[in-house]
Amino acid sequence: MAPRWRANGLVTFLSDYGLQDSYVAQVKGVILSHAPQATLIDVTHLVPPQDILEGAFQLATVWRSFPPGTIHLAVVDPGVGTARRAVLLGAENHFFVLPDNGLATFVLADAASVLAWHLDRPAFFRSPVAPTFHGRDVFAPIVAALLSGYEPAVLGTPIDASDLIRLPIPIIRREDARTVGPVVSIDRFGNCRTLIRREQLPGPPDRLVVQCNALVIRGLARTFADVPPGHPLALIGSHGGLELAVRDGNAADVWAIRRGDLVEIRIEGS
Amino acid sequence: MAPRWRANGLVTFLSDYGLQDSYVAQVKGVILSHAPQATLIDVTHLVPPQDILEGAFQLATVWRSFPPGTIHLAVVDPGVGTARRAVLLGAENHFFVLPDNGLATFVLADAASVLAWHLDRPAFFRSPVAPTFHGRDVFAPIVAALLSGYEPAVLGTPIDASDLIRLPIPIIRREDARTVGPVVSIDRFGNCRTLIRREQLPGPPDRLVVQCNALVIRGLARTFADVPPGHPLALIGSHGGLELAVRDGNAADVWAIRRGDLVEIRIEGS
Amino acid sequence: MAPRWRANGLVTFLSDYGLQDSYVAQVKGVILSHAPQATLIDVTHLVPPQDILEGAFQLATVWRSFPPGTIHLAVVDPGVGTARRAVLLGAENHFFVLPDNGLATFVLADAASVLAWHLDRPAFFRSPVAPTFHGRDVFAPIVAALLSGYEPAVLGTPIDASDLIRLPIPIIRREDARTVGPVVSIDRFGNCRTLIRREQLPGPPDRLVVQCNALVIRGLARTFADVPPGHPLALIGSHGGLELAVRDGNAADVWAIRRGDLVEIRIEGS
Repeated sequence: MAPRWRANGLVTFLSDYGLQDSYVAQVKGVILSHAPQATLIDVTHLVPPQDILEGAFQLATVWRSFPPGTIHLAVVDPGVGTARRAVLLGAENHFFVLPDNGLATFVLADAASVLAWHLDRPAFFRSPVAPTFHGRDVFAPIVAALLSGYEPAVLGTPIDASDLIRLPIPIIRREDARTVGPVVSIDRFGNCRTLIRREQLPGPPDRLVVQCNALVIRGLARTFADVPPGHPLALIGSHGGLELAVRDGNAADVWAIRRGDLVEIRIEGS
Repeated sequence: MAPRWRANGLVTFLSDYGLQDSYVAQVKGVILSHAPQATLIDVTHLVPPQDILEGAFQLATVWRSFPPGTIHLAVVDPGVGTARRAVLLGAENHFFVLPDNGLATFVLADAASVLAWHLDRPAFFRSPVAPTFHGRDVFAPIVAALLSGYEPAVLGTPIDASDLIRLPIPIIRREDARTVGPVVSIDRFGNCRTLIRREQLPGPPDRLVVQCNALVIRGLARTFADVPPGHPLALIGSHGGLELAVRDGNAADVWAIRRGDLVEIRIEGS
Repeated sequence: MAPRWRANGLVTFLSDYGLQDSYVAQVKGVILSHAPQATLIDVTHLVPPQDILEGAFQLATVWRSFPPGTIHLAVVDPGVGTARRAVLLGAENHFFVLPDNGLATFVLADAASVLAWHLDRPAFFRSPVAPTFHGRDVFAPIVAALLSGYEPAVLGTPIDASDLIRLPIPIIRREDARTVGPVVSIDRFGNCRTLIRREQLPGPPDRLVVQCNALVIRGLARTFADVPPGHPLALIGSHGGLELAVRDGNAADVWAIRRGDLVEIRIEGS
């Protein structure tokens, strides 16, 4: 039996539009023109321009904090105006409206099952469509239509979710006594976040050695205050993956860690 | 017959208040104290301090994305506390609440007809009025009053829209085979935007040569992906004017273009 | 008689979470999951990481712009995951949900009377609680519970407000003909703000000399436009304290003033 899709009125919005221009508000204006009761929540608009990986990571960290029926609008879209597809996804009763360019990579990896539709029906778009601003002219009207009660099958053509574009997810390499994976995102505090989950660690927390560049940490902490101010620590972050931090400091700055740098976790003495 | 002014509950808010202080929230608190059902949408608060031209440009790009009955609050106000007037404008059933200092320049140029009122009735202001924060103490209460159903004529004294202050709009110079105009705003992506509209170009898109400083582009593109990554292009941007860009790059940085620099469009071979 | 606590549906939100990550939205998602009708207003999320004093200052400037019944959520929380208490305060029919670490210092100093509860009942938290993200897993659920009508006494254990942690408030020193106090916060415009109130000045405005580092100003202005562009001035700012500014300029940059620098006000000729 098909799930009952039903928008709850909440819309999250993630983009690389920045905060200095009116792009974000233009998108919201189009949504509110057709669905004035919508509640719009910004995730972030400071994804670096065209940085799909960072957008995908941020989207992955946020969607489960919202209730079923929420629509997640995500636009990091270097291929705007090309043949890249606009798509609607349904996963665990959440909706995702976004370009098919890898932005949904981690949602696709996490969600139990995903349904997908190609948004190929210009009758639902704004007219004319500006070839450089599908956020306003394609995605926003679709969000408004969902909020107004249109069924996904009316808005687009079903496609196979396995055909959706995925980013080459950074590989997590596991050997007997070692796990290695890259820093995928660095937050405002300089915390360096990986996708390595607790169950992927090679041993018990107190026997681990975590290394990234010149930084070497023994054992896993539970929270920042487990170490003295200024000291580094490794912990499972609130996003669910291994994270390197400095208490009351900025790990990325202090230890010169950049996105893509490898984190290695091994068992002490091995 | 006078138009029926009727607020729809939406309020856009543009300012140079920045995001590090509580100024924006103070304004919102005053509005919501009197009109708790209002829906407040930030346009941007990162207009450079006192930069009326940039504020006017952003306001021009956003208001038509909202439905009739929307109130647009715009505060870039170097003259706060002086004799500069606070005004209410009505144009195409949109309201504008702002200082009379040029912020409305492009709205006045675009809108079919504009009605204006001088907000000269302190009974509608917060008391006392802080001489440095009319956003909170003058403009916000007026927005709240509009949302509560007060007619413009109750809130202020009618004035002639032709007396409103306009910025010296950057001149677009058109000769037979040439159009010249300045870059008016540079967005987060480094796209350099002019006010030159499609119908002001000197010839058909594929015969044009567009030049700005050392950057020379042949022909107009439709969207970023019409050129290879890293290549420059000229196109009609989503704001409706000619725009210079670099695909997946930053035209302003790469080509050292700054606001005010002139863009010349000529017919090839001429 | 105990006051009737009743949330009005408005929630302000202040933090040091920044705007590049999804942390702010995760908190909002939890609140809206349980209280979908809430109206959430950002105060600022750009408090410098772990800067409790700046957070406390911003909170002090904003709360009275909102109506009674508003919930103020404030999270600058270097001690997250330690034994520092999570607390709920009630003051003048406003609620404050925050860590007990000094963030409420200026609210406590200003409000007529304050009631306080220790939020010590995990049944109201999200489960499990991430030890590094109490904003999402402890404070947000409490905000939602308040919005849903739970009484403070159900959510926590009454504590004595005099036991709450206060920052060592920068001392304002008053002598016969002199008042001295530090710059506590510098805003986006470079305005340098102190906590020195009008009634703490040593004499009438036109007889005062205000000095900070190399900057010396005679007399108090009422608003920026009282001096020519580019000139410095001292005035009572919209936050209610003495402020140093440069008209159409940035006082902190031009005069190399930093937070903590002392401002001295003396009577001319003394």
